[in-house]
Amino acid sequence: MIKTPVRGMRDIMPKNLRLREYLLGIIEQTAKVAGYQKIETPAMEQLENMSSKIGGENESLIFKVLKRGRELEKAKAENDELCDSALRYDLTVPLARYYAMNGEMLPKPFKSLQIGPVWRADAPQKGRYRQFLQCDMDILGDDSVLAEIDAIDTVMKILARICEEAKVSGLNLRINDRRILLAAATFAGFGEDEVGAALITLDKQDKIGWDGVRNELLGRGFAAEKVDKFVNLFQNGAQTPEEFCAQLGEAQPDAKVLDNLRLITQAMAGKRVSFDPSLVRGMGYYTGAIFECSADGLDSSIAGGGRYDKMIGKFSGQDVPACGFSIGFERLVAILEDLGFEPPLPQTACAILVSDKVSATKYAEILAQAEQKRQDGKIVSVLPMMRNLGRQIALLEANGYSEFEKIYGD
Amino acid sequence: MIKTPVRGMRDIMPKNLRLREYLLGIIEQTAKVAGYQKIETPAMEQLENMSSKIGGENESLIFKVLKRGRELEKAKAENDELCDSALRYDLTVPLARYYAMNGEMLPKPFKSLQIGPVWRADAPQKGRYRQFLQCDMDILGDDSVLAEIDAIDTVMKILARICEEAKVSGLNLRINDRRILLAAATFAGFGEDEVGAALITLDKQDKIGWDGVRNELLGRGFAAEKVDKFVNLFQNGAQTPEEFCAQLGEAQPDAKVLDNLRLITQAMAGKRVSFDPSLVRGMGYYTGAIFECSADGLDSSIAGGGRYDKMIGKFSGQDVPACGFSIGFERLVAILEDLGFEPPLPQTACAILVSDKVSATKYAEILAQAEQKRQDGKIVSVLPMMRNLGRQIALLEANGYSEFEKIYGD
Repeated sequence: MIKTPVRGMRDIMPKNLRLREYLLGIIEQTAKVAGYQKIETPAMEQLENMSSKIGGENESLIFKVLKRGRELEKAKAENDELCDSALRYDLTVPLARYYAMNGEMLPKPFKSLQIGPVWRADAPQKGRYRQFLQCDMDILGDDSVLAEIDAIDTVMKILARICEEAKVSGLNLRINDRRILLAAATFAGFGEDEVGAALITLDKQDKIGWDGVRNELLGRGFAAEKVDKFVNLFQNGAQTPEEFCAQLGEAQPDAKVLDNLRLITQAMAGKRVSFDPSLVRGMGYYTGAIFECSADGLDSSIAGGGRYDKMIGKFSGQDVPACGFSIGFERLVAILEDLGFEPPLPQTACAILVSDKVSATKYAEILAQAEQKRQDGKIVSVLPMMRNLGRQIALLEANGYSEFEKIYGD
Repeated sequence: MIKTPVRGMRDIMPKNLRLREYLLGIIEQTAKVAGYQKIETPAMEQLENMSSKIGGENESLIFKVLKRGRELEKAKAENDELCDSALRYDLTVPLARYYAMNGEMLPKPFKSLQIGPVWRADAPQKGRYRQFLQCDMDILGDDSVLAEIDAIDTVMKILARICEEAKVSGLNLRINDRRILLAAATFAGFGEDEVGAALITLDKQDKIGWDGVRNELLGRGFAAEKVDKFVNLFQNGAQTPEEFCAQLGEAQPDAKVLDNLRLITQAMAGKRVSFDPSLVRGMGYYTGAIFECSADGLDSSIAGGGRYDKMIGKFSGQDVPACGFSIGFERLVAILEDLGFEPPLPQTACAILVSDKVSATKYAEILAQAEQKRQDGKIVSVLPMMRNLGRQIALLEANGYSEFEKIYGD
């Protein structure tokens, strides 16, 4: 039998899990007192839902689950699809399905908190695993900007607390709106079926630079005039949505778009919030405001989200406004681990080490002593004393134990 | 797109999740102060590990995960196995793999706490799902009876607290030892390759009765003499391991077996502990003491476990003594839900309902008010006031909200 985990997956050691649970505690506690309610969906989803184009690139990374029994035989005989379900690649599509299925029983609007594993068959590399945890907060059924503001307010509180613990400074939020990006692409002359490609390239700007964006768009066969007009919009140094949109002439987005961004900025007064017209966010399903958090010295964002008003309707036939924020949990864990951060121990941990010379008839008495110490607020583990006591104690110390009581024979 | 969950799986509503997390809180808190450390393994395991015969019946219920890309093409072309991994059907086999892989870095002995979903393609029925949560506590690396005693002590504390909350009385523990069962089968004349079948039938005794056991064994083709000799052992009214084993003549188990059971019973003095020679436990991997908890009025057990000293060696080549207890988490949830049990709310929940007549420029101020109330210890959710306010409030009440503050336009 094979003792290694499946390729690209990992076993989590007690010490690492303690850090993860510490972070989850901050996230859950902050989200719950702000009225987010936790829900859970199954790990597996209908294959149809996992390959509907909503998930973009992620859909090419799904793990499919084989049909079983007679259905599998039939599929093989008829050369049909061998799978009808797959592991979820995110928590947003399952949430939309969940709301379409169960929305009637939920408060309106519904503020959801989801924490759970997702699976993607990405090429494994340092810090990137094929199973990882996502933490999502979403507000479903609110079309007002209060949803954006509440989600941002709560996520910024969570991140502020984590950044403080980790001594990471410069937490900031960048905001934009998909409708501004659409207006910009339209203004530059991109047709409806070309906008997607233009935005995918624009999304890479922080990695490939503006020359890179220009070259990639030219390489995709777009006319130089279009490409220049598009790129110039972003290079003209517009600082506010108003300044940026003033360049767009007839292609102006709705006035509500600018109002929303102003209201978000105003509600977050005192925090570092900036308008970033080149912020795209990977997923194609966003329909309105989009946002992303980062901090000084980090090479990637630590949370991101936006409004997606057209997804739930794909399941229920009826659109429900939706706005969500996903916290980059694994990214935060990696940052804290790199910093050597260790969460404070909640209690003193004491090991009672029992020599094999002690008669087993004394075990009940030893357990009672241990329980007494627990009542006094300690973690107490009763363990047999091992031959290599020095190594036993060293391993316990590495796992947070600081008190050792040795019981020898009498 | 399809809004129902995958067949046999379920969405969990906030109210149900609250009960689940309440129970998990009791389990985690009790296990952690007793020195159990939480670990995590991936949802997927190597297919080879999931179909090695260790898992018995459960292996026929695994969900297999399809190979991907070139590997899948190759497998199809060569008519080879289409899968090389599967979702785990329990937490014990992954734990054995985990320990074989990571044991060097862990305290010795290692007291493990695992809480996570497992998957089995059982025929769905009321209360039985294809994804469900398991809670396992295991002690690895301790061959002394202290392991059994510590695991039982901790699980009994957890169950006592849950039974008290649920007003379920009569919590009790039944114990036996696989080596007594082997001795009994040997005494009756079952050959080495027949013992498994005899025990599988004996395991059904609580459902089919002694006549049922007799008939099933006869139906399997065993001689009437053998069958009678075997069944009579259990019907002779032996109350203690000593009385039971006194019947076995030459086939006596090792004296240590009886010592162990006596020590366990003694350490649990004051609790309802009884010897049950017909206790089998389903899994074939047990090698020593086995145990099961139940309570008055319940038609099935609520926790069970035992010693399995030969599993880790299958991964590492070196046997490591192991003893574990699995809490029937879903069973406990079902019992509490049937009783209409609701966990106490930790905090008052207040909804601030904001009319759309309120200018959005006031949102920052409203958020600040909400935060003030949170500092005072309340859950506070800021929500837009819906047109159907009565229904909105009713749904919030059903989700634990008891205070409502309405903000109308000014």
